[in-house]
Amino acid sequence: MSEAVFIRPPEGKLLVLTPGLGAVATTFMAGVEAVRQGRARPYGSLTQMQTIRLGRRSAGRNPLIKEFLPLAELEDLVFGAWDIFPDDAYEAAVRAQVLEAQDLKPLEDFLRTIRPMPAAFDRRYVRRLDGPNVKQARTKKELADMLREDIRRTIEETGASRAVMIWCGSTEVYTRPSECHRSVEAFEAGMEANDPSITPSQLYAYAAIMEGVPYANGAPNLSADVPALEQLAIEKGVPIAGKDFKTGQTMLKTALAPALKVRMLGVRGWFSTNILGNRDGEVLDDIDSFRAKEVTKAGVLDTILQPDLYPELYGDLYHKVRINFYPPRGDAKESWDNIDIFGWMGYPMQIKVNFLCRDSILAAPIVLDLALFLDLAARAGLKGIQEWLSFYFKSPHVQEGHVPEHDLFIQHIRLKNTLRVLGGESPITHLSEEFELYENLK
Amino acid sequence: MSEAVFIRPPEGKLLVLTPGLGAVATTFMAGVEAVRQGRARPYGSLTQMQTIRLGRRSAGRNPLIKEFLPLAELEDLVFGAWDIFPDDAYEAAVRAQVLEAQDLKPLEDFLRTIRPMPAAFDRRYVRRLDGPNVKQARTKKELADMLREDIRRTIEETGASRAVMIWCGSTEVYTRPSECHRSVEAFEAGMEANDPSITPSQLYAYAAIMEGVPYANGAPNLSADVPALEQLAIEKGVPIAGKDFKTGQTMLKTALAPALKVRMLGVRGWFSTNILGNRDGEVLDDIDSFRAKEVTKAGVLDTILQPDLYPELYGDLYHKVRINFYPPRGDAKESWDNIDIFGWMGYPMQIKVNFLCRDSILAAPIVLDLALFLDLAARAGLKGIQEWLSFYFKSPHVQEGHVPEHDLFIQHIRLKNTLRVLGGESPITHLSEEFELYENLK
Amino acid sequence: MSEAVFIRPPEGKLLVLTPGLGAVATTFMAGVEAVRQGRARPYGSLTQMQTIRLGRRSAGRNPLIKEFLPLAELEDLVFGAWDIFPDDAYEAAVRAQVLEAQDLKPLEDFLRTIRPMPAAFDRRYVRRLDGPNVKQARTKKELADMLREDIRRTIEETGASRAVMIWCGSTEVYTRPSECHRSVEAFEAGMEANDPSITPSQLYAYAAIMEGVPYANGAPNLSADVPALEQLAIEKGVPIAGKDFKTGQTMLKTALAPALKVRMLGVRGWFSTNILGNRDGEVLDDIDSFRAKEVTKAGVLDTILQPDLYPELYGDLYHKVRINFYPPRGDAKESWDNIDIFGWMGYPMQIKVNFLCRDSILAAPIVLDLALFLDLAARAGLKGIQEWLSFYFKSPHVQEGHVPEHDLFIQHIRLKNTLRVLGGESPITHLSEEFELYENLK
Amino acid sequence: MSEAVFIRPPEGKLLVLTPGLGAVATTFMAGVEAVRQGRARPYGSLTQMQTIRLGRRSAGRNPLIKEFLPLAELEDLVFGAWDIFPDDAYEAAVRAQVLEAQDLKPLEDFLRTIRPMPAAFDRRYVRRLDGPNVKQARTKKELADMLREDIRRTIEETGASRAVMIWCGSTEVYTRPSECHRSVEAFEAGMEANDPSITPSQLYAYAAIMEGVPYANGAPNLSADVPALEQLAIEKGVPIAGKDFKTGQTMLKTALAPALKVRMLGVRGWFSTNILGNRDGEVLDDIDSFRAKEVTKAGVLDTILQPDLYPELYGDLYHKVRINFYPPRGDAKESWDNIDIFGWMGYPMQIKVNFLCRDSILAAPIVLDLALFLDLAARAGLKGIQEWLSFYFKSPHVQEGHVPEHDLFIQHIRLKNTLRVLGGESPITHLSEEFELYENLK
Repeated sequence: MSEAVFIRPPEGKLLVLTPGLGAVATTFMAGVEAVRQGRARPYGSLTQMQTIRLGRRSAGRNPLIKEFLPLAELEDLVFGAWDIFPDDAYEAAVRAQVLEAQDLKPLEDFLRTIRPMPAAFDRRYVRRLDGPNVKQARTKKELADMLREDIRRTIEETGASRAVMIWCGSTEVYTRPSECHRSVEAFEAGMEANDPSITPSQLYAYAAIMEGVPYANGAPNLSADVPALEQLAIEKGVPIAGKDFKTGQTMLKTALAPALKVRMLGVRGWFSTNILGNRDGEVLDDIDSFRAKEVTKAGVLDTILQPDLYPELYGDLYHKVRINFYPPRGDAKESWDNIDIFGWMGYPMQIKVNFLCRDSILAAPIVLDLALFLDLAARAGLKGIQEWLSFYFKSPHVQEGHVPEHDLFIQHIRLKNTLRVLGGESPITHLSEEFELYENLK
Repeated sequence: MSEAVFIRPPEGKLLVLTPGLGAVATTFMAGVEAVRQGRARPYGSLTQMQTIRLGRRSAGRNPLIKEFLPLAELEDLVFGAWDIFPDDAYEAAVRAQVLEAQDLKPLEDFLRTIRPMPAAFDRRYVRRLDGPNVKQARTKKELADMLREDIRRTIEETGASRAVMIWCGSTEVYTRPSECHRSVEAFEAGMEANDPSITPSQLYAYAAIMEGVPYANGAPNLSADVPALEQLAIEKGVPIAGKDFKTGQTMLKTALAPALKVRMLGVRGWFSTNILGNRDGEVLDDIDSFRAKEVTKAGVLDTILQPDLYPELYGDLYHKVRINFYPPRGDAKESWDNIDIFGWMGYPMQIKVNFLCRDSILAAPIVLDLALFLDLAARAGLKGIQEWLSFYFKSPHVQEGHVPEHDLFIQHIRLKNTLRVLGGESPITHLSEEFELYENLK
Repeated sequence: MSEAVFIRPPEGKLLVLTPGLGAVATTFMAGVEAVRQGRARPYGSLTQMQTIRLGRRSAGRNPLIKEFLPLAELEDLVFGAWDIFPDDAYEAAVRAQVLEAQDLKPLEDFLRTIRPMPAAFDRRYVRRLDGPNVKQARTKKELADMLREDIRRTIEETGASRAVMIWCGSTEVYTRPSECHRSVEAFEAGMEANDPSITPSQLYAYAAIMEGVPYANGAPNLSADVPALEQLAIEKGVPIAGKDFKTGQTMLKTALAPALKVRMLGVRGWFSTNILGNRDGEVLDDIDSFRAKEVTKAGVLDTILQPDLYPELYGDLYHKVRINFYPPRGDAKESWDNIDIFGWMGYPMQIKVNFLCRDSILAAPIVLDLALFLDLAARAGLKGIQEWLSFYFKSPHVQEGHVPEHDLFIQHIRLKNTLRVLGGESPITHLSEEFELYENLK
Repeated sequence: MSEAVFIRPPEGKLLVLTPGLGAVATTFMAGVEAVRQGRARPYGSLTQMQTIRLGRRSAGRNPLIKEFLPLAELEDLVFGAWDIFPDDAYEAAVRAQVLEAQDLKPLEDFLRTIRPMPAAFDRRYVRRLDGPNVKQARTKKELADMLREDIRRTIEETGASRAVMIWCGSTEVYTRPSECHRSVEAFEAGMEANDPSITPSQLYAYAAIMEGVPYANGAPNLSADVPALEQLAIEKGVPIAGKDFKTGQTMLKTALAPALKVRMLGVRGWFSTNILGNRDGEVLDDIDSFRAKEVTKAGVLDTILQPDLYPELYGDLYHKVRINFYPPRGDAKESWDNIDIFGWMGYPMQIKVNFLCRDSILAAPIVLDLALFLDLAARAGLKGIQEWLSFYFKSPHVQEGHVPEHDLFIQHIRLKNTLRVLGGESPITHLSEEFELYENLK
């Protein structure tokens, strides 16, 4: 395990493509540029700021991740996007009301250069939105081909050597995998036949994979997580990951639930409510879009707490998640959790958590990390589902038969140990005492 | 590493000795008996309820810890205690107001059998308390000898084959290690000379170690964590651990701080306040006892967040901890934390956590686990400081030169991997994908 | 205004009738008996504990309300009830899980004597419930007649001299006043014709008024608040009041909103969420029952904040109320409010309120006060809608053309000043300084 | 009572003088100018925005207060200040970090014109602060004379017809009234003798009153609330008021406590903690300055809840107030309250309130209202302590023998009824139903 994987060096520019040029995408792009201009620091980003311990703690080897592995540099990033509104990235950022005027102003020139391509969009999948900047085509297959053409053209225009695509669009309505998702052939036939179970985000995913572009899905709807696209990713040698950026309430939930479980504290109920006022909240006010969200949020506790192993502790857990559109909040999403726990002799206790967060501020560095790590994965020859990126998702996309890991800390250890292995180092067991232990025993 | 350590089997009865027969000790004893009578379940206890994964997840080997390693059975526990009040365990439990009358009543006969021995006590170290059930002696050495005699006599009277001691007494005033703590010889001379820097809890620790009885300290004051007693523990082959049971606010803090750090979210300030109304709160109203507590609480964030590695994120963190005596709450301690964090582009966010907890309910299963794990350690031939038990402590006692680990999840992995090694299994790296990873690469 | 109103003395026993023998009614009855047995104090009840200032503060005249006015004594209360379950009041109280076993046990003999009469019930109006103890009849008119017969018989059996009726049943589905509610004649014809817009609670209200029994409605559904029954109450000389007991979140809301308004602080949004797990919560999980509740809750802010007078401050207020069925909580309802306010120069601030309350504990003393005050009103010759009792209701029942008063403090002043007038005293203006003021001016 | 008091019309300019040109004073001045420029609205100010109901509600007479009574116009306000730092109001506002750069910028020219006069200052009374812009004098009497000279000169320079003075300085250390505060003579002799019990703020108060300038104290320390200055105010015909602006936590407390009391809910404990990071917080970190604050905060609950009248409900209330300096918060003070209440049968409930407020934003409109109302009072011939302004203070200054009123709503009614009387209208009793009541009785 001590031999480093061969990884192609990150030569040339990397194009980051985002379907969706709204709050998340513009905050991501503005932040990258602000860092490049020396106006901000990339807080929240592991690829930019986190160190990685190599060997025993006492050895003191703690390089930055980006010094340990050959990631693309921020200087080499270029951007492209699709959106149903024709606003450029500056206008979109102003409208999103995430970043303050004084922070956006110095970035205006840069942001104005990013103008969205017409989107592959269909109101049936995002019912609360509509916009004029939309592609017209006879079939979904034609739309996909137009997207592939967009990708090729943008790579050329930006002079990039390669690209990644991160879905930053709105949540589509909840759909289940259907027949046409079973195989690449069925999927392509479905596109030709305008099968309603094929969503716009799947057209983007298909286009990306066909063009050899790694793809990640930041929203909760079904996208690349169907057999047809998984199979296509393997065939084309493209890494994919998903889904639903783990921000805010769910991030904290996946830290608190493990804390209760390692201490064997029981949980009788977990009530989670959210208020948010941005476009995301408006879209989720549509019951079917919310359904997609609710499904990705609900599974989190079960897989962390393992009620099958611990029926006495977690078998009767009542879990309720509510999302409320509440315009006064704008992007400054807020969550309130009430957790009813019990301990020794069954005595009840309560935990209440109020998180005044900012959706796009938490999501933007995830977009950056996914772009850089997926690009790294591609250059390392990894393909198909990248489970080691589960750390970034509310609903990790895993292989058939695998249990998704939700525990934030296990996800993190997995991510870091994977990086260690890619770099030719030994994984860490935190068993720092094994030697002393054995000496003790003599 | 795949050979199990030889562990003497847990034959005969195990005597659990507690200096202090107050809220924590009586809740612990009552709970053990309630479980034995089938009236309660040992929630909160890893030794009783937690499973341990062996091998790859897909193998499905998840025995209970207590099935994997030869722990003492609850049926084999017997109890002894010292206290400055002469109340038996039933009266003390009623006065502590932790458990409800209907839960205590069926345990009355059993609890009445536990009558505290006179305590080695000195008001100078716990100024808010005083009681009549106290040993009289000319020197601290004489007191220690009386405690040793107590231990031997109680083992005999209860027919136990061995014992462990867990300090469940009040927090003593803050003291620093002095000359007399440098070596066993200096310590013994100090006891003869009534050196004021030797506290009652150290007399208990000394007596325990001299009698070959493992010792753990549940309070924040200095106790076995001085060179003299560390050295004595090695000499006598006795495992020791400490200090300050990790319950309530600090437990959550050591789960939340790692969550922020793995996500590279900065922390500008962390304000923690507590209200508690039990005897613990009354004692901590004495500024010097609080000082001991404050010191163990303050270090937590620094060692988790590593401001030296991440000065931009955690270098300016303002951390303030307050403990308030507030009688209306009784044992139902409550904490409120406000955490000021920042993310992408420096934008601020806030987390507020309100924990309505119960001090003794959270501490009782820790007493049980420490008793059983220290007994296991002794039978496995482990001696001196047991760092792998850091999981249970606010201020882990580590060897000179080691950095104490506060991250709840790293502590837990270390605990579990240590158990795996003791049982002859491989430690877990959570790198479940290494094989797939390499196959991917081909 | 200085002459006291003539009030018939409260001779003989007063029968308190409750449609519904669930959590609220049994907690009310158990509490009254516990007070009579000297086991509890009637906290929460103005009729039992509040004083009333008479004259200027310096005069020091502060008798208890019950010493100032001739209220019925607790000793003279007797009870009757209807319910769809045949459980007696003890069994119902045990099932309701509001009071603890140790508090209920000494009251068992008394509570067992209260056995519910078969209810006038129809699942179409409370869809989540069903029970066997139900009256059968051909028409609604027949049901009403059976209820009148129940009232007469129970008065006779209990030896009472008079009665009051307080609706303590579940919330019925939302209905609007229809044609048949326009006049007494239309209403009586509607009952004969089984008009679906006549709900069971209206049959109880009708029966009560026809029997000269004052009636109050503790639930949010339409009941006596229709012209037909208002007119009938005037004709029969019967006082009525309603509706929806003001407990928990709304009580606090009607205290906080006035605080913001007197200080001219603006409100941009008010988000209120509730979790509750009792039968009330289960019923409100039915969207139509919730609709009734939501309507009574929504109006509160508008009438307090007067957005018409203060459009800049309250014109754009976004108010959202959510009720969530959450079984782990039982009767211990909990609310969380987030209030987005703004002050000087428009700067935003936030208030968050978390109320861990107990629904029936807050409602029970309201039932008692309404029973005693309505009986007082009847003996004082007051008839029709009693607006001075608005203090107790989420949605005060007022005369056509009157604006309901929601401000808790104005409601309280009105209640107390009304009592002063009834007792022949001057109302208080809190202008204690008028004389000093004028002397100042000379 | 129906004849209006004669009030001299507000001709000419009104000079508002503030000892202290820090966060509160600059936010007040900036806001007034922003309103004059049409850039902001005077939210939080009763004199600018509140209406006053005249006569019965149905009459619909609701003029603005400022239309009902002859208040000074914002256009006519001019400003003067003293401070220990020489920064002009713009620099001071920037340093205070209350208002954002984009809001301050358009006001810069105006704010730069306000330059602080050297302060009468002594570090012994505000130990955490020191600054260079300080008067030098041999005796306190000389300092007072210099302040009088400042007042006269500033009136002249600004062309004002009259002035008011509002103390906006830091909290001085806690002092008790001493011999020299007994009479005007003793006070003047004390100033000559440099009596240490005479504080700087009392020199300002003395100077103001001597110059016929109304004075209000916004801080909790002793100032005009001593017999010597009360007597002087009567003699000179000057209105005075105090003390400690009611903002934030205490404002909410005086709204919530009345809510509990009107409903006869008991209170076992009330724990209030604050975190604040501005200069006010720094000053209060000095235990003696905090002592002054604590004393004004502690009395609030007692006078509202009347434990003497209600010993069962409020006799054992445990009230604890904590203030914590916490720099990450700056001026955005935050409070957390935990209230332990009990109701029917003694069952406990809890209320938790988290107020994310802004100290100076809440205080600024109070400064404005006090300036305008004190000026009105002076023109109406009112003199000495103005109890009707209690509404604005944490610790209302009342005459010897009067009980200070803390209930926010009673304070508000008193304020409004006083205004009604001043304007020749009848006070309101909220007994809107008296007539209907009597008609009912016929």
